[in-house]
Amino acid sequence: MKAEIITIGDEILIGQIIDSNSAWIAQQLKELGIKIYQITSISDSPEHITKAISDAETHADIIIITGGLGPTKDDLTKETLAKYFNTKLVFNKTVFEKNKELLGKRKIKMNELNTKQAELPENCIILNNTNGTAQGMLFEKNKKTIVSLPGVPFEMKKIITEEFIPFIQKKYKTTSLYHKTVMTQGVPESELSLKIEDWENNLPKDIKLAYLPKPGIVRLRLTGTAEKKKNIAKKIDEEIKKLQKIIPDNIFGYNDISLEEVIKNIFTEKNKTLATAESCTGGNVAKLLTSISGSSKYFKGSVVAYSNEIKSKILDVNKNTLNKYGAVSKQVVTEMAENIIKKFNTDYSIAISGIAGPTGGTTEKPVGTTWIAIADKISVDTYKFSFGEHRGRNITRATLTSLNLLRLKIIKN
Amino acid sequence: MKAEIITIGDEILIGQIIDSNSAWIAQQLKELGIKIYQITSISDSPEHITKAISDAETHADIIIITGGLGPTKDDLTKETLAKYFNTKLVFNKTVFEKNKELLGKRKIKMNELNTKQAELPENCIILNNTNGTAQGMLFEKNKKTIVSLPGVPFEMKKIITEEFIPFIQKKYKTTSLYHKTVMTQGVPESELSLKIEDWENNLPKDIKLAYLPKPGIVRLRLTGTAEKKKNIAKKIDEEIKKLQKIIPDNIFGYNDISLEEVIKNIFTEKNKTLATAESCTGGNVAKLLTSISGSSKYFKGSVVAYSNEIKSKILDVNKNTLNKYGAVSKQVVTEMAENIIKKFNTDYSIAISGIAGPTGGTTEKPVGTTWIAIADKISVDTYKFSFGEHRGRNITRATLTSLNLLRLKIIKN
Repeated sequence: MKAEIITIGDEILIGQIIDSNSAWIAQQLKELGIKIYQITSISDSPEHITKAISDAETHADIIIITGGLGPTKDDLTKETLAKYFNTKLVFNKTVFEKNKELLGKRKIKMNELNTKQAELPENCIILNNTNGTAQGMLFEKNKKTIVSLPGVPFEMKKIITEEFIPFIQKKYKTTSLYHKTVMTQGVPESELSLKIEDWENNLPKDIKLAYLPKPGIVRLRLTGTAEKKKNIAKKIDEEIKKLQKIIPDNIFGYNDISLEEVIKNIFTEKNKTLATAESCTGGNVAKLLTSISGSSKYFKGSVVAYSNEIKSKILDVNKNTLNKYGAVSKQVVTEMAENIIKKFNTDYSIAISGIAGPTGGTTEKPVGTTWIAIADKISVDTYKFSFGEHRGRNITRATLTSLNLLRLKIIKN
Repeated sequence: MKAEIITIGDEILIGQIIDSNSAWIAQQLKELGIKIYQITSISDSPEHITKAISDAETHADIIIITGGLGPTKDDLTKETLAKYFNTKLVFNKTVFEKNKELLGKRKIKMNELNTKQAELPENCIILNNTNGTAQGMLFEKNKKTIVSLPGVPFEMKKIITEEFIPFIQKKYKTTSLYHKTVMTQGVPESELSLKIEDWENNLPKDIKLAYLPKPGIVRLRLTGTAEKKKNIAKKIDEEIKKLQKIIPDNIFGYNDISLEEVIKNIFTEKNKTLATAESCTGGNVAKLLTSISGSSKYFKGSVVAYSNEIKSKILDVNKNTLNKYGAVSKQVVTEMAENIIKKFNTDYSIAISGIAGPTGGTTEKPVGTTWIAIADKISVDTYKFSFGEHRGRNITRATLTSLNLLRLKIIKN
């Protein structure tokens, strides 16, 4: 089974945006055992769209088209598809009402352009877009499946997951591929690969390992193929048990769960509360924690103290401590962690102070130097890290490291 | 002048890596006035490589191929190209010595595989790779230019910049393509396109408009072609002046500048300070502001008050106000904005309280309802918004909206 992805949009061809949709789609199809033959990025022109689909039909069974479905005049995909499949656009009342309701919730009135989005090719299967006004359209032709989706990632992903994959699973039959991803924090990829070398070399032949690193986190994806999913799942779980013994503090979850979700689950279950006092992370810890729905059950808030004045005035850090040791010090993060617990009356706290860069580093404390404190009502644990040179990565690493340290403290309590 | 980019590599087709090379190459070619006709990602197979080049020759003058030049057996691009261009591989002593020296510096000895990298097609122009062992290869055929480059970004970029661009500039003479992107906040795409419809319809024929929306922001890209860059730049600026009169409050900058960067520039220039009091955005405003290096010059910090208790205890919001009007109200954000200015002793403040969702909505205050207050030492302006249903998007929209409102207040002062 082969597929081709066609992405439509001049913004890709002039390099204004990087096409990340295709990689995501390719991953989803791989799960179904479908191989991508080619990914083609083309312009918003009817001739080019027609040519690309027609080319793709010669070598792919499934063609996934993204982009060019917006309400404005430069989006021509829908009209082109209707022509290509010898059909006409018809007004769909259900889609119109769905879009009206969706826009209504955002206090946007239906206008001529939005109304037109409810006009869809007569012979297509409509894939419902609950995240936006451009519906997905699925065409079947000579046993081939051609689908057109909006290019906005969160709309496209929703339609692929909820509408397209179930359709494909029903229509085609594929062998079972089983994945489990181990989420790790705190060991960089190169170090991790040495730590787990023996384990990796002794993996059964039908289990494959892939390293999927991103800043602060390394995902280890184990993949097995089998007739029966249950057997391979069990086999993979046994290998993970061995891995847990090698890196007990670093595995925080499975299958792309985030650290912020893990923290929410533990705090909610244990009925404990949390506050953060952040300097160099600038609110990123709070932001990440509150990105999860339900975080208000345990997270009371944060003080972002981006100047020494605020550290002493709002977080009551002793001015002598600040002067003697500097803001990036064990002593200051300790006071920050202790004081935020008292002020916010929580069970736990995180405090972070570091030099995110690119400026502000010294020989003694170079860019990347970061102190993290994790406190409960009884004790404060402090840690010093040297993250690196890159501002954004330092903030991400400090944030994720603090969450993993917090996780370890609360589960050990 | 048209170009096509062909990227070779199974890792792209299985979604393991995102192709960011193409966007970078496209940007470089855009500067030269060369339009990308298509970007095609294909597998490491000789048949596929041959087919892709042959297809590209039918519509592109310049073909840039990346990837598949590594020393290992699965990299077949070089052999395939030699066959395609009816030539043979010959050993190049200069390249061999350069590679030997390069690997020597990394304490790597030349082996059979590395030695083979010095074998290059007899009829190609060699583009020197000072960052790696895979040379670039340039072929000329029927007035067309076909170039093959390694896929490693830092090697590819070096060869493009130092070898390929000078070659192209010498060989072809091109007309100038000029882009300017107008950054807007506060008007959704469909509404914006109606607002500026007349202006859009009256654009000169040699200026094209594209809408590039992302959550909370719509970028308007104006593209013009001309013999002289200066002329078209002037013409586009004149159109932008007209646009400014239609949406004066929504244009915050040009050419992909971020709102947080604009805010930093204004505050630094005016020598003013800022603090934020955040509820539903959970620290996202502070996080965004502090993502910019140098933000500590004006940003003092934030209180993330994620519970009513913290709103009253830390931000001194009157308990009666909270009880009477609820946390998501004009009255509460007003107090939050006023009090944070006093507590943090700043010139300006932002306060945000809303229902991010997906839970917590009521009939009176559905999910997405958000109050924003912008204060200076004299006055507080408050605004009510109905953003939508999606938690992440609500947070992003509230954040960006507050930054644009802050921008308007400070520039009007």
